[in-house]
Formats: sequence, C-alpha cells, structure tokens
Amino acid sequence: MPPFCPALPLNINANWKNNLRVVLVSTRNPLNIGAAARAMANFGFSRLCVVAPYDVAFREARSAVGAAPLLQKAEEFPTVAAAIADCRLVVGTTSVGHRELQHPIRRLEYGARLMLRGLPAAPTALLFGSEKFGLSNEDLSHCHWLMRIPTVGQDLSMNLGQAVALCLYELARDPKAAFASPEKIRSASAAELEQITSRLLEVLNRSGYVNPVTSISTDEKVRRLVRRLEIPGRDAKVLLGMLRQILWKLEN
Amino acid sequence: MPPFCPALPLNINANWKNNLRVVLVSTRNPLNIGAAARAMANFGFSRLCVVAPYDVAFREARSAVGAAPLLQKAEEFPTVAAAIADCRLVVGTTSVGHRELQHPIRRLEYGARLMLRGLPAAPTALLFGSEKFGLSNEDLSHCHWLMRIPTVGQDLSMNLGQAVALCLYELARDPKAAFASPEKIRSASAAELEQITSRLLEVLNRSGYVNPVTSISTDEKVRRLVRRLEIPGRDAKVLLGMLRQILWKLEN
Repeated sequence: MPPFCPALPLNINANWKNNLRVVLVSTRNPLNIGAAARAMANFGFSRLCVVAPYDVAFREARSAVGAAPLLQKAEEFPTVAAAIADCRLVVGTTSVGHRELQHPIRRLEYGARLMLRGLPAAPTALLFGSEKFGLSNEDLSHCHWLMRIPTVGQDLSMNLGQAVALCLYELARDPKAAFASPEKIRSASAAELEQITSRLLEVLNRSGYVNPVTSISTDEKVRRLVRRLEIPGRDAKVLLGMLRQILWKLEN
Repeated sequence: MPPFCPALPLNINANWKNNLRVVLVSTRNPLNIGAAARAMANFGFSRLCVVAPYDVAFREARSAVGAAPLLQKAEEFPTVAAAIADCRLVVGTTSVGHRELQHPIRRLEYGARLMLRGLPAAPTALLFGSEKFGLSNEDLSHCHWLMRIPTVGQDLSMNLGQAVALCLYELARDPKAAFASPEKIRSASAAELEQITSRLLEVLNRSGYVNPVTSISTDEKVRRLVRRLEIPGRDAKVLLGMLRQILWKLEN
C-alpha cells in the first residue's frame, strides 16, 4: 500500500470541480487567457479568476470568438489576496530553479492527488504567473505549497495555456482508466479461419504458388499464417468475399 | 493485479523517446506547430514530422524566435504514408463523435500505456489532424487504433498545442510519482513548542489577555493551540524571536 493513496472524489461529489479557482496572475497575452479558459471548459472546470491582467489583454480575450460563457463570467481581482480570500488551500505553479524557493514543491502527479483530497470539501486556488516571470515572490508568499510540471531540463519554461491544460488534466485524470481492460474485439471463429485458410489455399493452388511436392507443408504454413493475423470476426466475411471473387476470376 | 499493467520503460531504454514521431497533418496555424515543438522539448521528445502543412504556416513556425533546434530539424512529408513508413505502430488522435469510427478508441491514460509497451523497441507515430477538421478518414485509415483525451462533453474540441502537450505528458508521466512520500519537513521539537508556549503565555499575561481566575485553563488552551499549528523546526526560532521582542517591548 503506498503511503498516501486517497480515493478519487470523482464519484463522491460531482460538484467538486466548482471548488477550483484557476487564478491567472498578471497574464500578458490574451491568447493565453483564452487557452486557459478553453482547457477549463474541456475538463469541466468553471471558475476563472484573473488578477491584475494587462487590461487590453483581458478585454481582447473576453471578446474572442468562442470564448463565451466561461470567460464572460471570469472574475477580476486587483490582488492575489482578494482572489483567494475564500480558499482553504492555495497552490502555486512554478518551474523550479529560477529563484530561492522556501516552499515544499510537489510534482504534478502527486500535487494533484493532494489537491483532490481537499477539493470536494473546500475552495482551492491554483495560481499561474505571467508568461515571462511566473509568480512573483510576493505572489508565492500566499501559497501553501508549490507544484511543478515534470518537464525535462529547466531552461525551457512551459507555455502558459499548455501548463493550465496539464494541471487540469491531471486533476480530472482517472488513474483507473490507465488499467482498463481493452474493449473486446470479437475474433473470427475457428470455423471462419479454416474457411479463409482453405479458400486462400485454393487461390494459391490455382495461381501456381503451391509446389505439389511440398503442398502439405504449405497447407500448414498457410494455416499458421492465417491464425497469426488475429482476424476480427467482422473482417472474416470481407476476406472470404475477396478470396471468393479472386477464385472466380482465376477459374474463368 | 490489473489485467494489463506494463512496466514503465523509462529506466530500461533511455532513448525510447527518440522512437516517437509526432506527426502534424495539415496544420494551419504556425503558432500550433510552434506550441507542439515546445511541448516536445519540454518533455524530451525530438522527432517532429509535418505532413502537408500550409506552407506559410510552416515557414513562419520554423523562423519563430526560440523555436530553434527541434523545429529546424522537423521533417516534412507530402503524405501520411511517407511520414509513418518506418513505424510499427501508428496511433491517431481524435475527438469522438464527429464521424463514423471503425477503429478501437482508447482513452489517453490507457492508450499511452499501450504505446509505451512498444516504444522502446520500435518507431511509433502519433498523429494529430488539422485544427478545424482533425484527421481525415483517409488519414485515419493508416492508424492501428485511435486515442482520445478524456474531455468533458464533445462539443468543444481541444486546442492542438494543448492536445499535443497532454499526450506527451501522459507518455512521460511517472505513475509512481503520484504516490511519492511527501518530503519530510522537520517539525519543531516538543521542547521548542513548550518554549513558544511559555513565551506566548508571558506575552498574553503582560498584555492583560489572561484572566487570573481562568489562567490554568488558558495555559492548556494555548498549549493545545500551539501544538495544532504544526510548526516546522526552522520556524520555531523565528517565532521565539518575535515573542522575545514583543515581551521586551511590553516590559519597557
């Protein structure tokens, strides 16, 4: 048993997603506000807060085609403190290494599990900083802990819209789905496979492919080959039809 | 034991990421080609293939600031067939519901595990269609199976750059990291907590907060309160310093 393995709250409280505040701090590019809003809609989150956005950027993003409801009801705040006032947990996002961090830093996979433990019961904020500088030290001082996306190397920061999408995906992700049984594809029956085999052998005989001296071993080779193909049931009829037509042509 | 639970190849073959071809088919927006390349760099993938991109878009993306090496060595192909020729597995991405799909569709969580099973040993392609129409039926016919990102509802497609980032993240994701032990934060010792408690009680006494009649119960309340705070070891000294200074001021 892993030391910390909370049950996913997905089925416990269907409205847990309403408890998440996605907080964009000092965002510059309206495309990124739009991308964040779109990712939220994709994964069923609804509460977007913007703190001190560049005015023009925010207005442009609001009026973007298709931006629609989620962006329209985005809440604007002058400060981080105002945006997160009702939250019981405040998590900042960061790329590591660019400053002295005094907070615990959790990888996204683990941090998201921690957030999910509290989300069903209490408002929780997830903060994203500006494209260029990330969250400031003052912004970070409002956070209980920090979360980082496990990228390779530290020189290249993530695109803001992509970072938001990844965090929301990890929160909405269903760990059980990784181990789902594959959907059953009905295989062709042994009888169908044998029909295909004998029809194919007829075609090969007619075509002069089969050497009469080795024809028994050819039979076996073809039979094994047909079994290796793992033919789905619904394709068996199609293949039989093709072979039948080829045979007809060879015989006429 | 889940029915299918392959070991992650992360430590088996460090170069498995080189076996992935990210194939963008008929991409229109240069920003999206750039975003895909950036996500690939973020997660350590290197082979970007573009099929029949809008010429201008591709040229713009190549020359974007910071696009640099990954985009510079992106390979361009006239057809999907040419781009995937050396691949042993070809996976298409799709939002479900927009056409008759004859392929098995796997959720990202599961599909990525399936891909990881083959990636260390063989070139594998992951196809993304155009922003507006996704992959065409002709493109899809080259795929062994399809993968979908588990978004909410089917009306709103995902942004292409975000979709690429999510797929690569899921491939690079470390399931074990979700259950990591939290880093140990050294708690304050009982002696330190008791120092804080008595210093705080002195301050409260001096300030006239403590009613002499109920002072014993106040002692206990304050002691319990201090324990509930879960004070880290390194913060104990800071708190003691604050209390010492306040006490000094109160006494002078």
